[in-house]
Amino acid sequence: MTARRRRPAIDLEALLRDERAEVERALARACEWLGDELPDELFQPARHAVLSGGKRLRPVLCVVAYRACGGSTGPAVYDLGAAIELIHAYSLMHDDLPCMDDADLRRGQPTPHTLFGEEATARAGLALIPAASLWALRASNALGAGDAVSRRIVSRLNRAAGAGGMVGGQALDLLAEGRGLDSTDLDRLHHMKTGALLTASLVIGGIAAGASDTTLDGLESFGCGIGLAFQVTDDILDATEVAADLGKHPSDDLLGKSTYVSLYGLEEAMKRARVHAEEATEALRGAGLDAPALIALASYVVERRK
Amino acid sequence: MTARRRRPAIDLEALLRDERAEVERALARACEWLGDELPDELFQPARHAVLSGGKRLRPVLCVVAYRACGGSTGPAVYDLGAAIELIHAYSLMHDDLPCMDDADLRRGQPTPHTLFGEEATARAGLALIPAASLWALRASNALGAGDAVSRRIVSRLNRAAGAGGMVGGQALDLLAEGRGLDSTDLDRLHHMKTGALLTASLVIGGIAAGASDTTLDGLESFGCGIGLAFQVTDDILDATEVAADLGKHPSDDLLGKSTYVSLYGLEEAMKRARVHAEEATEALRGAGLDAPALIALASYVVERRK
Repeated sequence: MTARRRRPAIDLEALLRDERAEVERALARACEWLGDELPDELFQPARHAVLSGGKRLRPVLCVVAYRACGGSTGPAVYDLGAAIELIHAYSLMHDDLPCMDDADLRRGQPTPHTLFGEEATARAGLALIPAASLWALRASNALGAGDAVSRRIVSRLNRAAGAGGMVGGQALDLLAEGRGLDSTDLDRLHHMKTGALLTASLVIGGIAAGASDTTLDGLESFGCGIGLAFQVTDDILDATEVAADLGKHPSDDLLGKSTYVSLYGLEEAMKRARVHAEEATEALRGAGLDAPALIALASYVVERRK
Repeated sequence: MTARRRRPAIDLEALLRDERAEVERALARACEWLGDELPDELFQPARHAVLSGGKRLRPVLCVVAYRACGGSTGPAVYDLGAAIELIHAYSLMHDDLPCMDDADLRRGQPTPHTLFGEEATARAGLALIPAASLWALRASNALGAGDAVSRRIVSRLNRAAGAGGMVGGQALDLLAEGRGLDSTDLDRLHHMKTGALLTASLVIGGIAAGASDTTLDGLESFGCGIGLAFQVTDDILDATEVAADLGKHPSDDLLGKSTYVSLYGLEEAMKRARVHAEEATEALRGAGLDAPALIALASYVVERRK
């Protein structure tokens, strides 16, 4: 029974393939605009970071939440999702810099600074932060959203990207290096570092579709659940997969840091990832949101192989 | 006659003293809010960068433009100016990082990374970018601005901060290292690197006060003029003052870079600074904006000693 609840009748593979194809087109549009704004020496690292693959989970969540809340899909909502992905791309560019984590490989490809230099990559990443707000405002316009909705979207995006969200979580992560965290602190760290932007993707999709506060609360809880499920799964994959499969060196994330696997052990961590995903889908149901595609994505988050 | 036109009957010293005192209070409010959001290890470098002095030209321009366009001053418009100063503060934090310009001194004080470390300073700077948008939205709210005005303000702030503005200009600056620029390229660089945020300060003040498009165009041209006047004067000060007076090492900015002094010589550069400031005040008059305080600030930009 549990298995059935976690596997709705939806073709997850087709969903991901189709949505990702649209997201890639939207990212190409965003890059075309960036290319008009940025000098070539900054555009190259930005484009490399934005277009070199990835799960595209954030824009997919945004679009699927938008549709679940009654929005009718068109290019503009993918543009909105792409704005969120620009923030994700910048965060990876900066995380990988020599003065940060100093990683030379991401998704099996050389990181931008190894190809284009540290300063150009750092500056290009900085350019993506305001670009994300501007691109989100453009997309809101194209969606026909009023000023109040646009304002909420750009506010939510910046909250998720900043001190109370992703950057705040990265700060906690930095502080946690070399000392053990308990499960409460680790949850808090990942709520902010990963969960905030994943949750914002869903909520922004909901806001754009004009969802009610109850529905937005449901998306918020769903986001928190899959955010934790995502991170626990990441720790499991880091602990079990080899570098070649992941396209990065597992040691990068494990060096002196608490992970869900180091805290709970592999088996318990796998159980917790599933529980988080189930709690996430329960939250959707509790908010009265019938969204098989979101439920399928919750399964994907814990069952993915990378 | 020219001298009279450049020196309106306004007590510039008192204006700067009073406005800066209000700006410092607004920056302290912004920092209090940041302290609630950021872990202490990131808050320390952020606060150091935001509260360690400076001319506060951007917030002062914002407030004075707001008042010139009929806005009645209160704390909220200083908060709006403070949002712009957060962007300026982040740009200095990142510029001074070891992986960027590697400067250990700014305004006669140690730079944040020398006190709090490179990664914490870099992350704190990143946190200030979305914080500036959020703080501008709050200030707009407190000013009673509608959603359309808030949206315009946050859009303008991000345009000025990003690829088409400050970061774009920094990129051109990076590319210009070690090769000579002609006057057109140097103007373009500084229009973006310094001028964009100075101009946005004025235009955002105007938007917040509900100024007409003609008035906003006047503020735009005024901003372009004083932006160039400001940079030419900076180059003159770098070339003529000693490190102790400036609080930074002049060589930092001169190393292998074109400046207005290297391009025109000292005397011609001084003349050009005055001409840019005069063109700026002409633009205000052309837009029908009677703003003695702005005209006084144009004089200040070229006559300041640091």
